[in-house]
Amino acid sequence: MKQQQLHVGILGATGMVGQQYIHLLENHPWFTVTFLAASERSAGKTFADAVAGRWHAQGDMPQKIRNMRVHTVDDIRAAKESCSFVFSALDSEIAKIYESQYARAGIPVVSNASAHRQDPDVPMLIPEINADHIAIIPLQQRQRGWNKGFIAVKPNCSLQSYLTPLYALHQKYRVKQVIVSTMQAVSGAGHPGVASLDIIDNVVPFINGEEEKTEQEPLKIWGQIEGNAIIPSQGICIAAHCNRVPTLNGHLACVSVSFANKPTKEEIISAWKSFRGMPQELKLPMAPEHPIIYRDEPDRPQVRLDRDADKGMATTVGRLRECPVLDWRFVGLSHNTIRGAAGGGILNAELLVAKGFIL
Amino acid sequence: MKQQQLHVGILGATGMVGQQYIHLLENHPWFTVTFLAASERSAGKTFADAVAGRWHAQGDMPQKIRNMRVHTVDDIRAAKESCSFVFSALDSEIAKIYESQYARAGIPVVSNASAHRQDPDVPMLIPEINADHIAIIPLQQRQRGWNKGFIAVKPNCSLQSYLTPLYALHQKYRVKQVIVSTMQAVSGAGHPGVASLDIIDNVVPFINGEEEKTEQEPLKIWGQIEGNAIIPSQGICIAAHCNRVPTLNGHLACVSVSFANKPTKEEIISAWKSFRGMPQELKLPMAPEHPIIYRDEPDRPQVRLDRDADKGMATTVGRLRECPVLDWRFVGLSHNTIRGAAGGGILNAELLVAKGFIL
Amino acid sequence: MKQQQLHVGILGATGMVGQQYIHLLENHPWFTVTFLAASERSAGKTFADAVAGRWHAQGDMPQKIRNMRVHTVDDIRAAKESCSFVFSALDSEIAKIYESQYARAGIPVVSNASAHRQDPDVPMLIPEINADHIAIIPLQQRQRGWNKGFIAVKPNCSLQSYLTPLYALHQKYRVKQVIVSTMQAVSGAGHPGVASLDIIDNVVPFINGEEEKTEQEPLKIWGQIEGNAIIPSQGICIAAHCNRVPTLNGHLACVSVSFANKPTKEEIISAWKSFRGMPQELKLPMAPEHPIIYRDEPDRPQVRLDRDADKGMATTVGRLRECPVLDWRFVGLSHNTIRGAAGGGILNAELLVAKGFIL
Amino acid sequence: MKQQQLHVGILGATGMVGQQYIHLLENHPWFTVTFLAASERSAGKTFADAVAGRWHAQGDMPQKIRNMRVHTVDDIRAAKESCSFVFSALDSEIAKIYESQYARAGIPVVSNASAHRQDPDVPMLIPEINADHIAIIPLQQRQRGWNKGFIAVKPNCSLQSYLTPLYALHQKYRVKQVIVSTMQAVSGAGHPGVASLDIIDNVVPFINGEEEKTEQEPLKIWGQIEGNAIIPSQGICIAAHCNRVPTLNGHLACVSVSFANKPTKEEIISAWKSFRGMPQELKLPMAPEHPIIYRDEPDRPQVRLDRDADKGMATTVGRLRECPVLDWRFVGLSHNTIRGAAGGGILNAELLVAKGFIL
Repeated sequence: MKQQQLHVGILGATGMVGQQYIHLLENHPWFTVTFLAASERSAGKTFADAVAGRWHAQGDMPQKIRNMRVHTVDDIRAAKESCSFVFSALDSEIAKIYESQYARAGIPVVSNASAHRQDPDVPMLIPEINADHIAIIPLQQRQRGWNKGFIAVKPNCSLQSYLTPLYALHQKYRVKQVIVSTMQAVSGAGHPGVASLDIIDNVVPFINGEEEKTEQEPLKIWGQIEGNAIIPSQGICIAAHCNRVPTLNGHLACVSVSFANKPTKEEIISAWKSFRGMPQELKLPMAPEHPIIYRDEPDRPQVRLDRDADKGMATTVGRLRECPVLDWRFVGLSHNTIRGAAGGGILNAELLVAKGFIL
Repeated sequence: MKQQQLHVGILGATGMVGQQYIHLLENHPWFTVTFLAASERSAGKTFADAVAGRWHAQGDMPQKIRNMRVHTVDDIRAAKESCSFVFSALDSEIAKIYESQYARAGIPVVSNASAHRQDPDVPMLIPEINADHIAIIPLQQRQRGWNKGFIAVKPNCSLQSYLTPLYALHQKYRVKQVIVSTMQAVSGAGHPGVASLDIIDNVVPFINGEEEKTEQEPLKIWGQIEGNAIIPSQGICIAAHCNRVPTLNGHLACVSVSFANKPTKEEIISAWKSFRGMPQELKLPMAPEHPIIYRDEPDRPQVRLDRDADKGMATTVGRLRECPVLDWRFVGLSHNTIRGAAGGGILNAELLVAKGFIL
Repeated sequence: MKQQQLHVGILGATGMVGQQYIHLLENHPWFTVTFLAASERSAGKTFADAVAGRWHAQGDMPQKIRNMRVHTVDDIRAAKESCSFVFSALDSEIAKIYESQYARAGIPVVSNASAHRQDPDVPMLIPEINADHIAIIPLQQRQRGWNKGFIAVKPNCSLQSYLTPLYALHQKYRVKQVIVSTMQAVSGAGHPGVASLDIIDNVVPFINGEEEKTEQEPLKIWGQIEGNAIIPSQGICIAAHCNRVPTLNGHLACVSVSFANKPTKEEIISAWKSFRGMPQELKLPMAPEHPIIYRDEPDRPQVRLDRDADKGMATTVGRLRECPVLDWRFVGLSHNTIRGAAGGGILNAELLVAKGFIL
Repeated sequence: MKQQQLHVGILGATGMVGQQYIHLLENHPWFTVTFLAASERSAGKTFADAVAGRWHAQGDMPQKIRNMRVHTVDDIRAAKESCSFVFSALDSEIAKIYESQYARAGIPVVSNASAHRQDPDVPMLIPEINADHIAIIPLQQRQRGWNKGFIAVKPNCSLQSYLTPLYALHQKYRVKQVIVSTMQAVSGAGHPGVASLDIIDNVVPFINGEEEKTEQEPLKIWGQIEGNAIIPSQGICIAAHCNRVPTLNGHLACVSVSFANKPTKEEIISAWKSFRGMPQELKLPMAPEHPIIYRDEPDRPQVRLDRDADKGMATTVGRLRECPVLDWRFVGLSHNTIRGAAGGGILNAELLVAKGFIL
C-alpha cells in the first residue's frame, strides 16, 4: 500500500510506553522513527544515554535509535521538520499542554494519554469497534482552526480485555448491563510504577481513576457522531472493580453481562469467532488476524499463556457460562502494553494512514 | 467456662489443614490434641517422621506433638479411647467414608470436608451467621440412629470473605443479588497444590468446583430448619467468578450487591461496625472481637496487610461505593487457612462445646 | 533494670526503617517514643497524615503515635527537650549533616545510616560480637569536643546473615577467607525501593555499594581499639556477590569459608549452639535467646520459614557441609528489617543503656 | 546440508522437557517428529488428549502433533519403523531401563536424563566444549555390542550458566578453583515440580543431588578420551551452592574463580567475545551465533532480561570484577529449559548428524 516509509516522532520516548513504541516500530513496514522527544532531563542526550539502565522493552534497544538525539517536547519546530505525525506517550498533565500545540502546528497526534479522551470532537479509537469515528476529525480541525493537524486517542488499557468481545455481541444482541472485575498487571503503572514491596504476595483492590475510565470510556467508544460531537451511548451501564495483581503483563477481566436479546451460547461463540473489523478488512500491519480468540479449555485464558496471542494484539476469551444474576459470564484477556498501549496506538495510526488522514 | 481440657483428635493430621489445626490448638484454653490419624503411609510413625520436611504451618512443629504416634483413620477404637471429638481435615472422598463411622461410634465430627455439606440434616456453620442451625443436631442423631456422635461442617473458604458482611446487611435490608469475583491464594489448594510454574506471573481464572460451592453454600447457611431439614434460602441469587492469583494466603472478593431495601452508605458502615454474633456473645476463645472490620482508606483491604486481622479470624471490608448496575460494591478479605479452614473449624467446635453438644 | 521509661526520638520516622522502629518500640519495656522528625514535607503534620497510605510495618500504626506531630530534622532544640537519645533512620546524605549536630547538642545518636560507619572513633556494633567497642565512645566525645552526645552505628543488613556465625567460629578457629553470595529481599531497598517490574520473575545480580560494605564492614567489627581508633582486622579476606531476589523480607547467604585451624563438623555445630554474647548475658529485652539457631534439616534455613526466628533477631544457619575449595560451606539467614535494621538499632541502644552510656 | 528431513522420536514426550522438544522442533530444518512415547497412562491416546490441560511450552501445541498417537516407551519396534533416532526426556529411573534397549535396537539415543552421564564410554556433550568426545561412540558401540545405536547425553542444566565461559578461559589460563552459587528457576524441576506454596516469597537453598552434579559433571566434560573411556579432568576443583528462587526460567550463577595464569580483565573479555566452538563452525541450526554474550552494564545479566538471548541458546556473562579471595568474579546466565534441556539436546543431535553418527 505504501510506497515509502512515513517518518514518525515519539513524544515521551524515554518512558515505558515510549520504549514500547520504539520496540514495536523497529521493523514496521510503513513507519520509521525519526524524532524523539522527552523532558528537559533527557534533552540533548543520545537516546541510549537518556535511557541508560532503564530500557524495559523486550530485546535490546534498536541500534539505529541508540544514537538519536532526544529533543525537548516543546521543540515542535524540529518535529515539524522531521516527521509526518507523532505518537504521544506523554503523561496526561504534559499531554494536555503539548498535544494541541503539535496539532495546531499541523502535526497529527496519535495519543495514549487520557488528556483529550473526553473531548467530544476527539475520536477515541478501538479500530475494530469505532473506526467510523475518524469522520469527526475534519470537524475537530474546523472547530479548532487546525489545518492538517489533529488529535486521535486510544482508550485506557483496562477496557481492551472485554470491550471488543462485548461489542461483537452488542451489534446483534444489545448489551445492557456489565459488571467487570479486572486483574491488572504491574506494567500498567509504568516504571517504576508499583513498588515490589506493595505487590509481592498481595492484591491491591484499587487503581486511582481506573474504575471511572473503565466505566465511562466504553460509552464514548460505542457512541455516535451527531453534529460536531461524539455522543456517548446511553443504553449500557458498566460497573468495574479494578485490582492490581502480581503479574508483569496482561490485564484479565471477569465479566457478567445482560442483553436486550439474550443470545445462546452457540450464538455468542459464533459471533466471537467470526468477528472482524476494519483493521482486518484493510489488512493493517499491526492488526491481529483474529481480533477475538475463543478458547474452550475450562481454565483459559490465563494471563501468562495467552497475553501474547497474535503478537499481543488479540483479545482472548473463554469460560463462557450462564450468569445466575445477569445473562452470561466470561473471562477476557489482553496485553496491556501492546494492545492496551503502544500496539493499539500503532494500529490507530495505521487506520488513519490507510484512510488518508495522515499523509 | 471449662474446668478441664477436652481431648480432641485430628483426622487428616499430616495434611496442610491438619497441620494448621495443630498449630492453632497449640495453646488452646479448652482443647488438647490427644489423637492423630492419617493415611496408611503415615500410620505407626511419629508425627515428626510422618510430616518430615512437609511442615507448612507457622513456627516450628509443637514439641509435644512431634512424638505422638499417628493412627490410621479407621482406628476408631483408639479415637474413642483417647478423645471427646475429632476435627476432620480429610479429603472429601475419604471423609465420605469415615466421618459417619466416627459419628456412629459416638464421636462428634467437626469437619472441614465438603462430603456432608449438602446433607439437609448436617449444619454448615459460620457461627456469627447461623449458630442456631446446631438445633438440627438432635434430629440428625435421631434420623441416623446415632447417639452422642454427629457431624457438623464448615463451608468452603471462598465464602468467608464476603458472606458475613452480606449477612450483617441482609438482616435489615434483604440481599437479593450478588456478583462476586474472588482472588484466591495458593494455600487454598493445599500442599503441593498449585504448581509454581502454573501461577508465578499468572492468574488462573478457574478453580474446579469452586464457583458452584461459592454460589450454593450461602443459601444453606442462610436457610431455615423446617422439620428434619435445613431448607436453603430462596430469596438470594449469587454469581461467582473464582480466580487463583499468586498470593500465599488470603482470599479477596470484589462484590456487587442489590437489596430489597437499599441502605445508605452510613447504614451499611454502621451495620458492619456494630455486627456481633453468637461467638462474640459467648466470648469463644477463637472468636474475633470484631467479626467485620471496616477500613475507610481508599486502597484497603489488601491481601498481605489485612489477612491476619484479629488473629486471622476477622473479615476486613472496604472500598464501599455505589454500584452502577446493582446497588452497592465493596471488597472483602479473609484468611483462607485460618478463618476459612482450621480456625473456622475450631470456632465451630467451641460453639458446640459452649452449647453442650460436645461434652 | 529500668525504673522508668527512657524517652526516645526517631529521625527519619516516616520512612520504612523509621516505621519499623515505631512498630518494634510499641510495647518496649524501656523506651517510649516522644519525638519524631522527618523532612520538610512531613513537618508539622500528624504522623498519621504524614505517612497516609504509606504505612509498611506490620499491623496498624500504633494509636498513640498517630497524632504525634512530626518535626523537621533540624529542630534539635525540640529533640533536646523531649528525649534522651535518638534513633537515626536518615538517608546517609542527610545523616552526614545532622547526626553530629545532634551528638554535639548532647543527644546520643544510635544510627542505621552508613554516614559514619567508617569513622575510626565511631563504634559499629553487633553486640554479640563487639560490645566492647563501646569503650571508644569516651574517646570519640573527647576528640570531637562532645559532651554526653555521641554516635554509635550498626552495620549494613547484608552482614547479619553470616557474620555472627563466622564470629562464633573465629574466636577459636580463626577465619581466613570467605566467599559469600547473598540473596537479598526487596525490603532492603526501602520503599518504594525496587520496582515490581524490575524484580517479579527476575534476579538482579547487583546492589549498588552493597558488596563493598559486605566486604569492608566486617573487618572493622572484628577490629580492635588502639589509641583513639578502631583498627580493622587484617587477618580475614571476604568476597561478596550481592543479589536482589523476589522475596519481601530476609537476606540469605551462601558461605564458603577457610580457617587457620579447620574445625570438625561437630565443633562447628557445638560452637554455634553454645554461642552467647553480651546481649544474652545482660538479658537485653530485644536480644534473641539464641543468637544462632542451627537447623539440621537438609533444606533449611528457608527465607520465609526462618526469617522470623526469635522475633526476627536470631541468625539461622544450616546446610553445613565441607567445601571442596575452601574448608566449610553453610547457609545463613537473618531478617533484614528487624535484626538488620530497626531491631538491631534497638539492641544497640539497649546495650548502651545497660552500660551507662545513655542515661 | 541435509537433503531431506530426518525422522525423530521423543521418549517422555508428554512431560515438560518432551513438550519443549516438540515446541523447538516445530519448524526445524533437519528434523521431523514422527514418534512419541510416554508412560502407560498416555499410551494409545492422541498427544492432545494425553497432555490435555498440561501443555507448558510456549505458544499452542503444534497442529500436526495434536493428533499423533502416543506409544508406550517399550514399543521399540514402532520406534524402529518410524524414526532414525530418539530424544530421551525420560525420568532417570526409566531412562536407565530403556535407553540401552533403544541403542541395542540400533536407534541412537540423544538423552537429557542423568542415567548414563557417568558411564565412561558415553559422551556428555556441550558441543562448544567437547565436541571431540563423540569419538568415543564407536568404542561404546564395540564395547556394548551395539550396531548403529548408541547413547549420547547432555549435562545437568545448572552448568550451562558458567561452564562455557570458564572453558573459554581455561584453554589459555587454566582454571584451578571455582566457587559457584546458583539461583535456579522453578521450571528446572519440571511440572508440577516446585509447589507454589514452597517458593513464593522464598528461597530454598537446596536442590536434591544438584550440587553433586554441578561439581562432578564439568570434570568429565573437560576430560580426555583415553583407551575406551573418557577420563575426567583432575586439575580443577568446583564447589557449588545450589538455590531455588521464585523465577520461571533461567539459571543464574555467581562465580569466583582462580587460574594457573591469572588473565587480565581485557584478556577475559576478549576470550569471551571471540569464543566460538564446533557448532558455530559447522553453522548448526540450533547453535547460537555467539555462544557467550558479554554485557558491560553494571547490573546485567538479569534473569528475565537475558535468558532468551540468541533464542535461549547463548550464555550471557557480566559483572566481571576481581575476587579478593580467588582471582576473578563474574555472573553467568542461561536458559535452563532451552540451552539447559531440549535446545541443548537438539544441538547435540545436530552435531551427531553433521559428523555422520546419525544417518
